[in-house]
Amino acid sequence: MRILGIDPGLRRTGFGVIQVSGTRLAYITSGAIVVPTNQPLSLRLKVILDHVREVVQATKPTVSVLEKVFVNTNPTTTLLLGQARGAAMCALADCDLEVYEYTALQIKKAVVGNGHAAKEQVQHMVQHLLKLSGLPSEDSADALASAICHAHTHPLTHRIKESGTLAATSELRLRAGRILG
Amino acid sequence: MRILGIDPGLRRTGFGVIQVSGTRLAYITSGAIVVPTNQPLSLRLKVILDHVREVVQATKPTVSVLEKVFVNTNPTTTLLLGQARGAAMCALADCDLEVYEYTALQIKKAVVGNGHAAKEQVQHMVQHLLKLSGLPSEDSADALASAICHAHTHPLTHRIKESGTLAATSELRLRAGRILG
Repeated sequence: MRILGIDPGLRRTGFGVIQVSGTRLAYITSGAIVVPTNQPLSLRLKVILDHVREVVQATKPTVSVLEKVFVNTNPTTTLLLGQARGAAMCALADCDLEVYEYTALQIKKAVVGNGHAAKEQVQHMVQHLLKLSGLPSEDSADALASAICHAHTHPLTHRIKESGTLAATSELRLRAGRILG
Repeated sequence: MRILGIDPGLRRTGFGVIQVSGTRLAYITSGAIVVPTNQPLSLRLKVILDHVREVVQATKPTVSVLEKVFVNTNPTTTLLLGQARGAAMCALADCDLEVYEYTALQIKKAVVGNGHAAKEQVQHMVQHLLKLSGLPSEDSADALASAICHAHTHPLTHRIKESGTLAATSELRLRAGRILG
């Protein structure tokens, strides 16, 4: 099972891909889609749509996971987040990928063991679980954490053994239409 | 100029297409994408994505208009609406259509002359302006009203003369993957 995790946002949409082989977790790639802020909303959403599709085509996941966005007390912010999330979800569905959803609380609980863990704890735990050589960025860490959460949660996957994972390789970044190595 | 108006919603997404020739408005088609409610969110959004793209391919609009959704006091509802809106906007942007946005208040003001007009007044005014043989459904009326609003508002379009419009023809309906005549 290869899991693509997405952390949707209208400024930055994080993504992370892991491979699950039996009880082993291996890091494949991760990064962030940086969405230009000086463009009309429809073009910003299209950046998310196009680039999530591009990540799917490049990494060939078998399943996808979307972090449930925080329902903000500001309705306008919630609406904007909803639209970004809609675009990411459309891209996944457009690639015929099944989409699983977890809240930030579920993800933190699965990865750190504490639903109210700080961002830094998630980053450190993702680095540890995937044997990354460096600390992943916040965007990457959140997306990878949602993928790890699915590996923990999904009935087909056994308990994750922390040892025996493959080493991390490259980090993929996408900015305004181009993949940056 | 051929304008496609969209009134996004997670249960029903209304659409309406009008042709503007000089000062004339002609009805092309309208209807509603009926989204199945018993499916996962990603598949529901894909229904909107696919069917809005289908409407664009079938009607070849030159510009599109999206009604700004009502920011509900319930954040969960706002998030769901945002996702439906994101899916509709992605479909339009995916077809390389420019997307204009108007609030319900602007649309009602442009069509009825009163930003707080009732739904029925909008339906009647749309019927009158487009010389429709019958009263359009609420979904169709809202989408057509947003297209009319753009025809009124856009600088390239002159003032709309109510006389001299072409007669309405068919109403298109899409339900769960099929276009209903």
